[in-house]
Amino acid sequence: MTTSLLSALAGDAAIEAFFSEGSEIEAMLAFETALAGAEADAGIIPSESAAAIAATCHAFRPPLDALRAGMAKDGVVGPSFVALLRTAVGEPHGKWLHFGATSQDLVDTALILRLKPIIAELSARLAALISALRHLQEINGGVALMAQTRMQRALPFTAADKIDTWLRPLERDEARLAEITPRLLVVQFGGPVGTRSGLDGKGDLIAEKLAERLGLSAAPAWHTARDSIIEWGGWLSLVSGTLGKIGADIALMAQNEVAAVQIAGGGGSSAMPHKSNPVDAEVLTALARFNAGLAGTLHQALVHENERSGAAWTLEWLVLPTMAITTGAALRHAAQLIAAMQFLPDAEPDQPSDR
Amino acid sequence: MTTSLLSALAGDAAIEAFFSEGSEIEAMLAFETALAGAEADAGIIPSESAAAIAATCHAFRPPLDALRAGMAKDGVVGPSFVALLRTAVGEPHGKWLHFGATSQDLVDTALILRLKPIIAELSARLAALISALRHLQEINGGVALMAQTRMQRALPFTAADKIDTWLRPLERDEARLAEITPRLLVVQFGGPVGTRSGLDGKGDLIAEKLAERLGLSAAPAWHTARDSIIEWGGWLSLVSGTLGKIGADIALMAQNEVAAVQIAGGGGSSAMPHKSNPVDAEVLTALARFNAGLAGTLHQALVHENERSGAAWTLEWLVLPTMAITTGAALRHAAQLIAAMQFLPDAEPDQPSDR
Amino acid sequence: MTTSLLSALAGDAAIEAFFSEGSEIEAMLAFETALAGAEADAGIIPSESAAAIAATCHAFRPPLDALRAGMAKDGVVGPSFVALLRTAVGEPHGKWLHFGATSQDLVDTALILRLKPIIAELSARLAALISALRHLQEINGGVALMAQTRMQRALPFTAADKIDTWLRPLERDEARLAEITPRLLVVQFGGPVGTRSGLDGKGDLIAEKLAERLGLSAAPAWHTARDSIIEWGGWLSLVSGTLGKIGADIALMAQNEVAAVQIAGGGGSSAMPHKSNPVDAEVLTALARFNAGLAGTLHQALVHENERSGAAWTLEWLVLPTMAITTGAALRHAAQLIAAMQFLPDAEPDQPSDR
Amino acid sequence: MTTSLLSALAGDAAIEAFFSEGSEIEAMLAFETALAGAEADAGIIPSESAAAIAATCHAFRPPLDALRAGMAKDGVVGPSFVALLRTAVGEPHGKWLHFGATSQDLVDTALILRLKPIIAELSARLAALISALRHLQEINGGVALMAQTRMQRALPFTAADKIDTWLRPLERDEARLAEITPRLLVVQFGGPVGTRSGLDGKGDLIAEKLAERLGLSAAPAWHTARDSIIEWGGWLSLVSGTLGKIGADIALMAQNEVAAVQIAGGGGSSAMPHKSNPVDAEVLTALARFNAGLAGTLHQALVHENERSGAAWTLEWLVLPTMAITTGAALRHAAQLIAAMQFLPDAEPDQPSDR
Repeated sequence: MTTSLLSALAGDAAIEAFFSEGSEIEAMLAFETALAGAEADAGIIPSESAAAIAATCHAFRPPLDALRAGMAKDGVVGPSFVALLRTAVGEPHGKWLHFGATSQDLVDTALILRLKPIIAELSARLAALISALRHLQEINGGVALMAQTRMQRALPFTAADKIDTWLRPLERDEARLAEITPRLLVVQFGGPVGTRSGLDGKGDLIAEKLAERLGLSAAPAWHTARDSIIEWGGWLSLVSGTLGKIGADIALMAQNEVAAVQIAGGGGSSAMPHKSNPVDAEVLTALARFNAGLAGTLHQALVHENERSGAAWTLEWLVLPTMAITTGAALRHAAQLIAAMQFLPDAEPDQPSDR
Repeated sequence: MTTSLLSALAGDAAIEAFFSEGSEIEAMLAFETALAGAEADAGIIPSESAAAIAATCHAFRPPLDALRAGMAKDGVVGPSFVALLRTAVGEPHGKWLHFGATSQDLVDTALILRLKPIIAELSARLAALISALRHLQEINGGVALMAQTRMQRALPFTAADKIDTWLRPLERDEARLAEITPRLLVVQFGGPVGTRSGLDGKGDLIAEKLAERLGLSAAPAWHTARDSIIEWGGWLSLVSGTLGKIGADIALMAQNEVAAVQIAGGGGSSAMPHKSNPVDAEVLTALARFNAGLAGTLHQALVHENERSGAAWTLEWLVLPTMAITTGAALRHAAQLIAAMQFLPDAEPDQPSDR
Repeated sequence: MTTSLLSALAGDAAIEAFFSEGSEIEAMLAFETALAGAEADAGIIPSESAAAIAATCHAFRPPLDALRAGMAKDGVVGPSFVALLRTAVGEPHGKWLHFGATSQDLVDTALILRLKPIIAELSARLAALISALRHLQEINGGVALMAQTRMQRALPFTAADKIDTWLRPLERDEARLAEITPRLLVVQFGGPVGTRSGLDGKGDLIAEKLAERLGLSAAPAWHTARDSIIEWGGWLSLVSGTLGKIGADIALMAQNEVAAVQIAGGGGSSAMPHKSNPVDAEVLTALARFNAGLAGTLHQALVHENERSGAAWTLEWLVLPTMAITTGAALRHAAQLIAAMQFLPDAEPDQPSDR
Repeated sequence: MTTSLLSALAGDAAIEAFFSEGSEIEAMLAFETALAGAEADAGIIPSESAAAIAATCHAFRPPLDALRAGMAKDGVVGPSFVALLRTAVGEPHGKWLHFGATSQDLVDTALILRLKPIIAELSARLAALISALRHLQEINGGVALMAQTRMQRALPFTAADKIDTWLRPLERDEARLAEITPRLLVVQFGGPVGTRSGLDGKGDLIAEKLAERLGLSAAPAWHTARDSIIEWGGWLSLVSGTLGKIGADIALMAQNEVAAVQIAGGGGSSAMPHKSNPVDAEVLTALARFNAGLAGTLHQALVHENERSGAAWTLEWLVLPTMAITTGAALRHAAQLIAAMQFLPDAEPDQPSDR
């Protein structure tokens, strides 16, 4: 897609980069290299062929137009990518390229290879945000605020109490990620119909060696069982949703009449120069609601019929990258917002609700 | 809601019962009894008052009309329920009822108390389904099928291979539930603004004793951090989604031209007596798509502003029970379907895709 | 489903009644009576048979257990309902019952027959709400308010200006409904595969006479083209969404610190007797978000494969009634809220945003 | 966003172009030019100033980095765009730029200016698809097919009957668009808080002249009433949903065992050279489900609080362009698919369901 102005607000260059054509190609080349290596180790293809494949992959830059045309025709980049790469490898080694594999092995593993650094990046941002919140709690937690329930003044509490309610779900999200990741960061390798057939009974061995070479774990083929992908999508939305709650809180506290927080460097208005808008806070809410909707759509992709569903798989592609980018953008906005804000004491702490 | 004919197909009496007025009242009485007991143990309220509260709760049946009117006026049943119960307890003990608690403590804990047996029920059904699939795999797994990728004949494999693709995500769902449950089955106890104030510093102690009496775990108040509720909603949809995939597979295999499965006792038609419709399979797909959509809507409830959001909390109530019922119904239909089906060998296993 | 306490808040008895078993049966009897009459008029079935069918339908009350069992087995109530009714009609007339029709003709037309009064009811409530808003504008519109943009004080305007922003989309919704209704309130009549076959070429004539007898319009069969149903679902969510915006506005204005509206008879709290919660306003937002999610799920039902999809049709059933009930509930809460509120003048109209 | 390989399949270059930075800037320049012209006509700003503004706009190319930075800071491009343009216009005319307008007037009108050609493009594609279906019906409609209900062989009908079920909802979508467009293609002009204040009572006159200059209709400001935008989003999903139904039908008919259609030039497989995958048909289903989910998320944006919601407006931006692109892509795939397919006669028309 061409760049829109919205990208500057709701995009995330670091995460988007992993979904670029270049990154996908790089990951696919890593897969084919590792597969050939694993199959050579297992004695299924000649070592010289694996070496030739690795050498070609190292330098190969496929013509993008051909890949795009292949994508449009085949509905998946695998066939054209493999055909172009096979030609580049040439005979006699080309026939051993992608041996026993199917497009889905290639494309799914190439996705997982990129989810690994994406998860590392999001995880680092989440940890940094948690640290920033703890720091804010230390330096600003003693401020007396008025708790608000059902949009009404309730009883006094402190900024530290408030921050606690933000921290706990984020800490649980860290624990969740530790549980989800081992299920997710696994190699996809099943062959045409997921059974690792045609490999002399060495399919499982190859899967293990392939996983090891790629820094992933081995697992049975999961061509049609998208639960771990979709579980992770749910995690992305749990994170952005909690950040949306933080954003909603801060936007409410930043109201002029409430004045429970002050945000440095708010957004300007083209018509009202006196305004300072809580832009990061509002954007957090928007990103939360966007990701929530996408999480539901992603769950639709669980209905992945038979041994490969072009419909459900494509749906997954349409949704998952945007969810990761959205959570990335939310973590960035949250970091900015927490760094720029400070709590202000409630003006009338003795007046819960009849001011 | 009045009963609709659809309930017979898509409802689930066992799960629905936990969301009835009677069950909610029973769980709320259990909360108030346990809270009074815990507070007496902690020396915060008199033991005689706890005993009187327990005795009253044991026999109390609040007038439903008054509760409904309270729900409509207050947006939550807590205030009217507590007022009615306090009158029933009478003075001097009534003033110790619900001491230091807020409506959300009552209503959230009463929900969790019912989620516990709901989870047990769904878990038992899931285990039974996994057993049934393993049994089917043993007795019928050797049948030669044609794998279908992108809606086209691909290569031969077996019914056992197919069942493997159904079993694995369900087994992972069992593992997931074991991770999620400890976060979810925790007592809610925070008082008006979540800080356990006004309890002589014994709030944490009371929370522990309360949890112990109710067979739940203790945790900090989570009034506004709905992540564990919503995570469980995601789990419900992961389960129904995989069952929807199984349903889609079976409906495709049951097509007359494909005839890869036979289902005993299919649905009839009012116009075409020759038909035997794969009703359970179709319903599984419908339930999966319904729950997927609800999962996304539930994620919207993460944006729970300030110290209690009537808007987000009500949204959660609108969605979560239906999701549990839907997964319950899906597990029932799946059990019926697996019990009624058998695989049939592919007629032309040598003809992958050009028949 | 058994009644939950939530029904008192988010249900709508008047709309729910149309989705009860009794109402559906009544509408199905009306269909069979009218069909027999239309077919007798067209000379396709004997007049005595039509009379006998009408007489039986007038008095027939099918055993609910048998209908529920049929629904569970066949996935649609048609087959069991027709079989029971045919037995009640007896021979020689019973064979002319439901002649040339299919279950979907029966069930879809029975739905449309109930959508007609539902639309009338919602339409009347919408008109009443618009009147109430205009009345409020007249009596209270002169109050000086502070417009709030991006959650910040912007510039002064009046309550009448604010009400204008609420009225306009509701007035457009009235115009939309006038456009949608003629597409929606049409009879379903197509026979087993939608072609009106086996009726001596008189299928279109029968459809016209059937429509006339039922107070609906005629149209080609729309078994698999659910666009008008789903368009109406979108309308339901447009209405509840605008009401959700009104609710969000009022909840924000009702904040103690803002005090731009006062609401009589707000909700109480079990812990904080000083509070008066803007329950109706919050519920409007919850209902809007619930219906928005359901609108998306309903759109999934457009993918209605081949000549009848049990999966897509069931999905529609799961979603549409709840959407109508939700919009009904939203209109009720909005009426209550507008009747109970009045605007209060802004305390510092000269201080746009730096109070 | 950087380009992903998926764009080649699910993107749409023609529609995407309207959402590029360049197109948005061009539309914003058109707005400011027309506004200055309208205000000069109304005697609110000097004619020389309007001429100077027009001349500057004609040549102005703002630095993208500055706009992106403004977008990120202000949450909307308006303030930085206007500031840059005002500097370019220079004094004494610059102060009359954007006179009486707010960022939302600029950004919303710039959106509508681009929706106009987008609607023209989608409308032309829809008309062409309808023509292609009618042509297919003429040349191929006589083929005897087997209708399939609930995934089972039902009764014979013809390809023409099938195409009728595809055509009717698309024809209704044309009628719907004619109803929706007049509500949608209206200028946004309200000033800071939507009241057209500060314009000497000539606000309505300016709005009319502005609309006329831009080829749009006039209407009251709709800053917070997003119903017509969201209604159009629903239309986009109605169209893609019907195309998803057509795709699902064709994918089912293209199954090897069913062989009711033949598609020229199907997609290839990297592992199974014998395959010809119904890629366009599958993609149509994926796009339908994606847009359905987005339609629901877009409805969330109806809850647009107070006089401008950064949260709800941003959510709209995140969703609407993707929906238009998705419907554009769906129309393109549908055109390809219909051009490439032909129906094949059912092999055993006398055997409805027990083959």
